[in-house]
Parts: sequence; structure tokens; C-alpha cells
Amino acid sequence: MTATAVTDDTWENLVKPTTGFWFEEEVTEDFSVKIRIESMEHHSKSDFQDVQIITTSEFGRTLVLDHKTQSAARDEHIYHESLVHPALMMHPNPKNVYIGGGGEMGTAREILKHKSVEKCIMVDIDQVVCDLALTHLKQWSEGVNEDPRFQLFCEDAKAHLEQDTDTMYDVIIMDIADPIEAGPGIALYTRDFYKFAVSRLNVGGIIVTQSGPGSHFNVQSECCTTISRTLRSVFDHVYTYCSDIPSFGSNWAFNIATGVERITADMASEDVAINTLAEDVGKDLTYSLTGRTIAEIDQTIDERCVDGTILKFYDGVTHLGVFGLTKEIRTSLKNETRIMTLENPVFMH
Amino acid sequence: MTATAVTDDTWENLVKPTTGFWFEEEVTEDFSVKIRIESMEHHSKSDFQDVQIITTSEFGRTLVLDHKTQSAARDEHIYHESLVHPALMMHPNPKNVYIGGGGEMGTAREILKHKSVEKCIMVDIDQVVCDLALTHLKQWSEGVNEDPRFQLFCEDAKAHLEQDTDTMYDVIIMDIADPIEAGPGIALYTRDFYKFAVSRLNVGGIIVTQSGPGSHFNVQSECCTTISRTLRSVFDHVYTYCSDIPSFGSNWAFNIATGVERITADMASEDVAINTLAEDVGKDLTYSLTGRTIAEIDQTIDERCVDGTILKFYDGVTHLGVFGLTKEIRTSLKNETRIMTLENPVFMH
Amino acid sequence: MTATAVTDDTWENLVKPTTGFWFEEEVTEDFSVKIRIESMEHHSKSDFQDVQIITTSEFGRTLVLDHKTQSAARDEHIYHESLVHPALMMHPNPKNVYIGGGGEMGTAREILKHKSVEKCIMVDIDQVVCDLALTHLKQWSEGVNEDPRFQLFCEDAKAHLEQDTDTMYDVIIMDIADPIEAGPGIALYTRDFYKFAVSRLNVGGIIVTQSGPGSHFNVQSECCTTISRTLRSVFDHVYTYCSDIPSFGSNWAFNIATGVERITADMASEDVAINTLAEDVGKDLTYSLTGRTIAEIDQTIDERCVDGTILKFYDGVTHLGVFGLTKEIRTSLKNETRIMTLENPVFMH
Amino acid sequence: MTATAVTDDTWENLVKPTTGFWFEEEVTEDFSVKIRIESMEHHSKSDFQDVQIITTSEFGRTLVLDHKTQSAARDEHIYHESLVHPALMMHPNPKNVYIGGGGEMGTAREILKHKSVEKCIMVDIDQVVCDLALTHLKQWSEGVNEDPRFQLFCEDAKAHLEQDTDTMYDVIIMDIADPIEAGPGIALYTRDFYKFAVSRLNVGGIIVTQSGPGSHFNVQSECCTTISRTLRSVFDHVYTYCSDIPSFGSNWAFNIATGVERITADMASEDVAINTLAEDVGKDLTYSLTGRTIAEIDQTIDERCVDGTILKFYDGVTHLGVFGLTKEIRTSLKNETRIMTLENPVFMH
Repeated sequence: MTATAVTDDTWENLVKPTTGFWFEEEVTEDFSVKIRIESMEHHSKSDFQDVQIITTSEFGRTLVLDHKTQSAARDEHIYHESLVHPALMMHPNPKNVYIGGGGEMGTAREILKHKSVEKCIMVDIDQVVCDLALTHLKQWSEGVNEDPRFQLFCEDAKAHLEQDTDTMYDVIIMDIADPIEAGPGIALYTRDFYKFAVSRLNVGGIIVTQSGPGSHFNVQSECCTTISRTLRSVFDHVYTYCSDIPSFGSNWAFNIATGVERITADMASEDVAINTLAEDVGKDLTYSLTGRTIAEIDQTIDERCVDGTILKFYDGVTHLGVFGLTKEIRTSLKNETRIMTLENPVFMH
Repeated sequence: MTATAVTDDTWENLVKPTTGFWFEEEVTEDFSVKIRIESMEHHSKSDFQDVQIITTSEFGRTLVLDHKTQSAARDEHIYHESLVHPALMMHPNPKNVYIGGGGEMGTAREILKHKSVEKCIMVDIDQVVCDLALTHLKQWSEGVNEDPRFQLFCEDAKAHLEQDTDTMYDVIIMDIADPIEAGPGIALYTRDFYKFAVSRLNVGGIIVTQSGPGSHFNVQSECCTTISRTLRSVFDHVYTYCSDIPSFGSNWAFNIATGVERITADMASEDVAINTLAEDVGKDLTYSLTGRTIAEIDQTIDERCVDGTILKFYDGVTHLGVFGLTKEIRTSLKNETRIMTLENPVFMH
Repeated sequence: MTATAVTDDTWENLVKPTTGFWFEEEVTEDFSVKIRIESMEHHSKSDFQDVQIITTSEFGRTLVLDHKTQSAARDEHIYHESLVHPALMMHPNPKNVYIGGGGEMGTAREILKHKSVEKCIMVDIDQVVCDLALTHLKQWSEGVNEDPRFQLFCEDAKAHLEQDTDTMYDVIIMDIADPIEAGPGIALYTRDFYKFAVSRLNVGGIIVTQSGPGSHFNVQSECCTTISRTLRSVFDHVYTYCSDIPSFGSNWAFNIATGVERITADMASEDVAINTLAEDVGKDLTYSLTGRTIAEIDQTIDERCVDGTILKFYDGVTHLGVFGLTKEIRTSLKNETRIMTLENPVFMH
Repeated sequence: MTATAVTDDTWENLVKPTTGFWFEEEVTEDFSVKIRIESMEHHSKSDFQDVQIITTSEFGRTLVLDHKTQSAARDEHIYHESLVHPALMMHPNPKNVYIGGGGEMGTAREILKHKSVEKCIMVDIDQVVCDLALTHLKQWSEGVNEDPRFQLFCEDAKAHLEQDTDTMYDVIIMDIADPIEAGPGIALYTRDFYKFAVSRLNVGGIIVTQSGPGSHFNVQSECCTTISRTLRSVFDHVYTYCSDIPSFGSNWAFNIATGVERITADMASEDVAINTLAEDVGKDLTYSLTGRTIAEIDQTIDERCVDGTILKFYDGVTHLGVFGLTKEIRTSLKNETRIMTLENPVFMH
């Protein structure tokens, strides 16, 4: 059946129904978010994953991989600014930056805002997603591909690092899917990978990784605390922080790690590294809050960014907010004992 | 974030998540169906309604107008065969058939299966839907537009009948949206419209209309009982029947009405018609069950259809099934007193 | 936070939100129904299953076992009348009736409406459900327990039949959970069980079983067609029929089987039985439609029921409706080849 | 139908389905959260609202009023600690504290942890909720009613303040439902109410109010920015802060206001107050971050709380985190121009 005649001029005044299309995404087994869909622009199956681009009423255009939100127009800047700027601003002079994953290209876009950056290498396994970013996700990828500092390789992120031994990096940014049971990226969250990453970092180098949900609940933050604990078994200093990203249905965690000098020595003495570093957690966590003032961070942003850049999310006050983890999350971090290995992975829901 | 390396050959064996996209359609305020979406092929706003073509895992390609399922690949034949064949088989020799609405073209497709039909006029207000049927809904529209007996007009279904006074019809088929509060089609469910329709029917002519949900529950079937009651205030014989159409989330009702000779006289004496006919309900309802045997219906199908036609849903036994309304629905029909007018419409949810 | 002062008299005129509580029940993996919950009266875990009694806005009080609707106040009479009356009315003089399962007691209630019944034995494994039926489901159980013809045993339905060899039955009614992969009742849907049941039936005895969803779709009706096929490998005559039970989210199927004399002989020659009976499907299916007239069925109901009984759903016209299966379901039944055994079960979703 | 025999010992190994009961709560029209329900303990309709107590798998026992989560066992401490402690710790010596609303009694519980408090007056309109808190929400109300410093009145929160002119308060805590269109509490979010509240505050007094969702999105935070702007039209200093409360489906905002001396003078000159104060926003917002060090806040908590008290959420680092609003929220606060009055209310969804 289909509609027919509008018999009078009241039609315009009638309440039209809103769409009945929804994207339901599980945050945990017992808690989901439900987001109204306006349209679906793309649907395909790459060699690695199901790929959809949809538009939701709440968050605008959204990339969905294997039925999980990757990033959405309305708040992708929160995710990408959170992932990139704290690490790059913490480094005194980041020149070479490596992105593991990063298909949407929002991470590259933020990195290229830094004047100091001379080379930005991005390695994402999925050509389909990278191509879509250029054609369908212009808000994410605008200008990236034209920047001569940027190079894209569609291959395995770890294999590339292993093979290209010429380039050493100041910052490595891991922008990959969560460590879920069905996911391909588990290996890139393990102690072995982090130890290997050290060998590709310059002195003073920094690694940062997206780290899954970061709520007050142990069950929701166990992925982020395990990643933190795993990094602490390799690096001197690990800073965990969380941003509110509404389209992810939860606060979201990140971990920055640094301290390459000491770690290189630690490689010979694994157990010592693991045990002694755990005690530093409390100190490290608050260090980031008091190490620099709000004004100093704001000044660094001004100095580092290419002329005319306006960050929408990150500044000095935001920095204090995202690193000011609540008592409960800090306790979870302190109490975490698991170290992620291929043999003993910790999976997100 | 995006996925990266597949580090081993276990990937193929992993359980892949199914899509998190859903179409939720309210059947009543307190009861909805939830259908998994695979993809959305089309999304637009015509002058009359929101138009979507989606593909669901359960029902295949589906036309959605104003966020209500119109028909789905998997069971549209049930809807269209139910709407068309009982009425056409009941008529001794249907030559001229009129479709009010019918945008998907499935109704036309079924009508054109009848050898006796010489002219099939379809009038749907929405050009956008009709065009989409030809390009995106080939299962529905295949062959229709090429049939010389078929003529399509995109305009008001009632206005067309009023203006084109040359053609008289043997069967009028109303394939329009449900009478919802926000809908444009209310006028086409009223006693006035049915009285007018009589003037466009040949002697022995028949009108059939889709009539909304037809469940055992009064609240769900009040649309269908009101349409039946409204038709009974105009026609001698009204037959209500129901088909199970899974994609509609409920059994679905139809009403066939006939008895033009007497009605024409009744026009002068409205009240008599209304009151006396109500008593005939019980008789009429069972009449259809015994009037013809299963074998007679099966034989009529064979004789009437163009060579090679295979109906998937309708035959003699099906006929008895769909007209064999349960005791409760027959009671609701008997007890219904409301007659639909523009001043006193009865709306579906 | 909690609400505070009503500061003026507009409160009554404000739109109050409806509840946000829902029961989502999967009909298939890709199709669910969503029913608004008003309240939850009971929640426990018996030795066999999760047990809930809830009240929904659409269907009233509802028994939910292992998170599947068992029966709801608003339409339980459709289920229970459909399960009981066609079989009992088909038998010339049913005295001893056996119920396998039947915890809500609606099946017993319908059986006890028959004057001819002298003994009604019900055997349900779950004491918790039976007790709840008496205290919380009075609409279902009213009067049952006080009827001297009724006896309840809480134990294994098959074991009871095996041990109590004194009683032979005229009708056996299987009112048990669907054959789902996680369910305990698989054994009671197998050819072995049906062969055994024959040995507990009097000459001319009848068995009827609820048979899961009965839609036009193969995937939805594969449980019912397999049960039909399995019964056809044992009994001479198998009649499949479907009722629309809105709270189940789908039409619902039942199978009646009879023909004990011949079957007993067949026991020695299994393959013959299986192969020859398959040819009878078409005849059997339509037989039920023409075997008795509407008037004859209505008269039988009058004669058989205890004085004052009013059936709400079932009568002669309803009978023709529910047995008038559509062409597609009849084709599925004809084409079904699977016979359910413990080694080769067919599971519902 | 009900389940029957477990025919073998595999039952324990079978996967049992999880419940199909859900609480869906709209955060916005296009974004909902879906929380699995284990049981419903209570359901009633008070004079003011629908009242439910449910238990969800994710958040435990939960009070739901008019179908919106009020607070849940798993994270109610975040809400109540956030509402109470920043304001009380900011005051040099809080003795008399007033709670408008607060039915669950979690707010009173937190207040009574302060040694300095001599009198805690709570006024909630809904006796039903208060009674339920004592019987069904012991985690919230434990010890409150037995504390001689606590007094409960079930009446209009504003009327009580107007009538009881003997008591002046050091801190007023507004713990009432969001200003939704259908809600009774609109009047308690208006400029008029805040001006009146000043007259009930001692010199140096502080008012704090829960302020609805506080996300990065204007549409989600418009309630909180309007409340902030309204308070700024009355008070010298207004501090907005946000906590992540998972069961609310969003970050949650609060506003603290102080500066009674100046305001009292402003009463004569409304427009001046409104216009000049707007300029202070930036300063005020960051003031709270630098005014006291982490160590000072931790020390104040130790000194103020009764012996043995352990706060689970709030401490010095948490303080910096919740007041460290992101650049976007601070911009929304700065740009907000609306002042809430009964004539021009701003409603939450």
C-alpha cells in the first residue's frame, strides 16, 4: 500500500513520525546504547571486517566497523584530539610520528597540525577503510593526503615497523580496534609488542594507545587498566586519562607511556621492571596534573600548531580535566595485576 | 580507531558479530516488532512522505513510507495476492480494474495475471514511489509498465475518479496507507467515498480495500471493523478476511464489498441502509466460506490466469483459511457500530 | 534526585510518560517482538528454568520461562482452546486424557470443560511453575485443582507414562516447551516418543502437540513441519493447523495425529510406514476441512461441554479457518523430509 | 506450555539465555540507553509520580521515577558525593544544611558525614518515595533517620523555606527532578527561586543544584548552561562541574553558587547584576581549579569527616577532574544567554 491524496492543507501541520531505524551497540552485555539512524551511505565487507558508513540523528556521519562505532562526525574531534595532542605536546620536539591503524585519517589530521612534524607514517591494514575515508569521510581526511609529510601504507602495522628499520620515531600512536575476542588487533596490545615498539622509538620517545572504555566500573575499565599495567611493565612512566565521547556510550580511556632509556636496560630484567614500576602509579598519575600549569599547556599549543589552527576540545583546563581521574579509576589502576600477552589476553566485551 | 593486522589464520574461525542495525516498528503503543537491517538502498523525502528502501535480514528488500513497512520482498506476495485475487475471482468477468494507490506495483502485477482484464488504471499520488518501484523494486513491478493494458497516473486517486467519468469499473482496489491521524488517506476510508465509488462501478461491481491489522484484539482490529461497518452502510454484502503477513507484525485485514444495485437505491434512504444491513453480518461472513467449494475456487484460478501463472499464496484451501475468521473477530465485526466519516474518523495507532 | 512540589494545577493536564520497561523476545535471530512491561510479580529460578510472572500493557499477566513467553492473560485462551478442543471434539468419547507439561493449568481447564472426561492426568516436571499457577495465575487455573477428575504429578512426563501402565488414554496432549537447543524437552518430540505414546493410547486414540511457530516462512515453520513429518512416520493421519496468537509474535502451529490400529502393525515395518504415509499429506490436510460441516462442529461443542460453558475462540468457522493452511505452509509440509530423533534433532531458534 | 523432563545430565552444561527484560531510557530523542532488568521490586503511583524500584544487571537496585533513573546502587555514590562534598568542603564551617528533594536519602547520608553539620533539614514532596527509601533503599538511607541532626518533612520544598523563617542555612542543596516539560519542579530552577533562596542563606552561604546532563553537546547541556546562567544573574560566583555517572547515560552537571553579600544589594538592580556577572564566567570556572591544591582538598576531607568515613569517589584529584570542564562546555557556558523564569522556562528533553 502507498499513500495517496493530501485532501486538505493541514498536512504541513501534522506531526510526522521520526525514523524507526536504530543502531544498537552493546557497551557491555547488560548495557547498550541506541542511536537513531537517518541513512546508510555505505555497506561492504572488506577482507578484514564489515564496513558501514551511516548517518545518525545524534552524531552525524559515523564509521562503523564490525558493528561498533569507530568515530562519528559530531565528536570524532574529541577522540582524535585526545589521542594525539597530550602525547605530542608532552614531547619536546616531535618530528617523526607513526600511526598504527588510523584508517579514518582523523589521527593524521591532528598530527599534521603540529609544525614540528616532518614525517607522519600511517599503516592501516584495510585499504577499503582508507579509501572510504578519502571519499566519504572528508571531515576526517581533509587535506591529509595532500600533505607531503604524510605517507600511507595499507599493510600490517607491526610488520611495517619490523621491516622499515631506517626510520626511528618520536611518537608512536596506536589507533586500532579494541582487543575483543573476535578482533585481529590483540597482538598490538601485548607486552611483546610494547617491548618491540621501544626499539623503534628515539630517545625520549613516547607511545600512546587508545585503551577502550574508561568508566568507574571495574568491568568496564578492565581493558584500560590492563593496558596500563602492561605498559608499566615496560615503560618508566605511564599516564592514563579519559575523555567523555558520547557516541561511544561511555567515557573513553587512553594510555601514554614514556621512559625509553630505563626500559632498554630493563629488557634484561623483566621481573624487576614489572614489580618496581607498579609502585609508581600514584605518583605518575598525579604528576601529569601538576607537572605543567594550565597556562603552560595553553602556551605550548599556541607555539606548536600551524598558524590558524583552532583546537576544539583540548587546552590547558581540558588537560587537567581528562587527567584528573576519579579515586575509583585510580584505585583500579593501582590494583590491576594483569599483563597482556598473546597467551593471556584480556578481552573487552 | 580502525582494525589492523590479522596476525594468524584463526580469523576465519572467529564468530563475527551480526549487524546492530534495526528497524523498530510500532504495531501498537505497547507492542513493536524489531527487524534487523542489512542495508539502506534509498532515502528521500517526497512531497507526501518519507521514503526509504531498506534490506532486512528477515524479509529482504522492503519499502518503508513514513517509517511504516509497506511491503517486503519475502511476503509482499501474500499481501498483494490477498488484496487482488479474492475480489477478482468473485467477479464473473472483470475487465476494467481501478487501483487507488498501489505505488509498489505489486497490486497491478497481480491484476494483470487475469486474462479477462482489459484495462488496469492505477492512480497513486506519489511519483517518487512509482519511479522507485520501477528502478528498485523489480520483484514488484516486473512487466507491469510494459503491459499495454496498464496505465499509471500520478495524482489524487479520488480526483481522478471524479474527473474521468468515461470509464466504469468492474473492480476497484484501494491499496492505500492506513487511516492514521497524520495520514493523507482518511478521506478514502469514509462512507462518502464509498458512496461515490458506487457511481463508478458497473452493475455487479466489487470494491476491496486493505483494512489494517486484523487480530483477535479489539484495539488492534478496530480499524478493520470500522471499515467493514462503514462499507456495510453502503453495500449489500461485505466480506472481511485476514492473512498472516509476518513483516507487518500482525495478521492483516481486508474488506470486499459488493451489491451495487441495491445500494444505488439506498442512496435516497441512508438510515435504512445502515440499520438493516447490520443484521446481515453473520450470514455474509459465513456465506463466503460455503458459497464455493475448494475445488471450484481452484478451477476458477486455472481458468482465469494467463498461461503459466503460478500463484504462491492463494488457492481454494487458502481461501477458506483466510475467510474463516475466528469467533472473536466475527463478534467484533458484529458489535461494531462506528461509521467512518470525515467528521468522525477512526484512526489506527 | 526526586520530584518535588506541584506548583500549580496544570499537573493533571501534562502528558505523563509511559513506562520504559520492555520485554524483548526473539522470534528469530533477525526478528523480535518488544512488549511494554507494567510490572514484574515474580522472579525465581526453579531446578529447571528461570521463572518470571510479569504484566505487560498489551497482553496482561504473562508467564515467562527461560525468557520466552509461555502464555499471556489476553490470549492464553487462544493457545489453550486451540491445543485442546480440535483433538477432543475429533474423538467420539474422550474419557481419559493425559497432559504432558501444562504447568499453567490452562490446558487442564479446557479439558475439564468436556462432560465426557472422567480422568485428567497432568504431569509437569516443575513444581515451582505448578504452584505459581495456583497462586498467581488464577485465570488459568481456576477450578482445576478442586475438580475430582484432575490429578497432578510433578515429575518427568515420559517416565510417568512408562511407570503407570494401568491407565490407557483416549487423548494425549503434549503441552511442553519448544524443542530448542538448550531445552530439556527434545526427547518428547522424537519418533521414539511417539511410538511409545501409541502403546499408551486406547484404540481410536489421538495425540496432539503444540508445534512451535507456524508462519509462511520455511525457516519459521521448520519445527512444525518436522514434527508433522515425524508424526506421519508413526500415525495414519496427521492434521496440522495454526492459530494467530499475538503474544507469541507469530502464528502458532499444532499437530493432531491419530490412526493407532494401523500404526501398531507398522511398528514391525518402520520404513514402509515412513514412505507410504508421506503421500497422504495433501488428502489429510484438506480432509479436516470437509470432514465435518461448520454446523456439525458447532453442535458437537454444544453437546460435549458442561452446561454454561462458553468457548471464546473455537467454533465451527474458527475450525475451518485454523485448518485452512495456506498453499505455502502446505507445500512446506509436503516437502519436509526430516524425522526428529534424539540423534538428529531439529531445533527451533 | 511449560518445560518438562530433563532427560539427561547435559542440562547443567547448556547455555541458559539471559533475561529479555530491558529498561530503555531516552537521553535525547535520538539517543537512548538500554539496561537489562533482573527484577522489579516495587511499582506504585504516588500523588506525584510513577514510582518503581528495579534491579538491573549493570547497576543493581535502581529507583525510577516517572520512568527516569533517579539513582542506582552501583553509582549513586558518584551522584551524591558530587552533589554534596564540593559545596560543603568549599564552605568554612557548614552547620545548617537544607535539602530540597533528596527522597532517596543518599544526599542526607553524605551531608551527615560532616562533623560540622548540626542540623540537616530535608523537604521532599513525596512521602511514598521517602518511605520506600527507608524500607527498600537501605544502601542509600542507612543510618540517616536515626541521626538526631536529621529532620524530614514531606511537603513543598519552597513552601517550607517560606514558612520556616527561623532557620538560616549555610548550604542549600537542590536534589530535585530535572526541569522537564511535564515535571513539577520547574519553579525551583528559576531566577525567582534563587533570589528567594538568598534570603534563607547565612552570610557566606552556598547553594548547589543538580543540573541535568553535561555533555560536550550544546543540545545535551543546554539545561546545565541555562541553570548556570540563571544562577550567575543572582550570585557572584558560579562553578559548574560534571561527573561521569554511567547509569544516567551521560556525564552529569552540577552548579555551585555563592556570593550572598553582593547579591543582596543586587536585588535592587537586577539588570546590572545580569549583565556584569556574565563577564566573570571564565575566571570563575578556572578559579576552582587553582584556588586550592589537591593536597589541601584531601586535607579538608580528612578534617571534616566523622571518624572512619571513607569517600569512594571524591578527593583532591577527582575535584580537579570534575571541575576541569572541556573547552567546549566552557564555551557553551560563556555563550549561554538564557535565564530561566516561570514565563520563559528551558526544558530538558
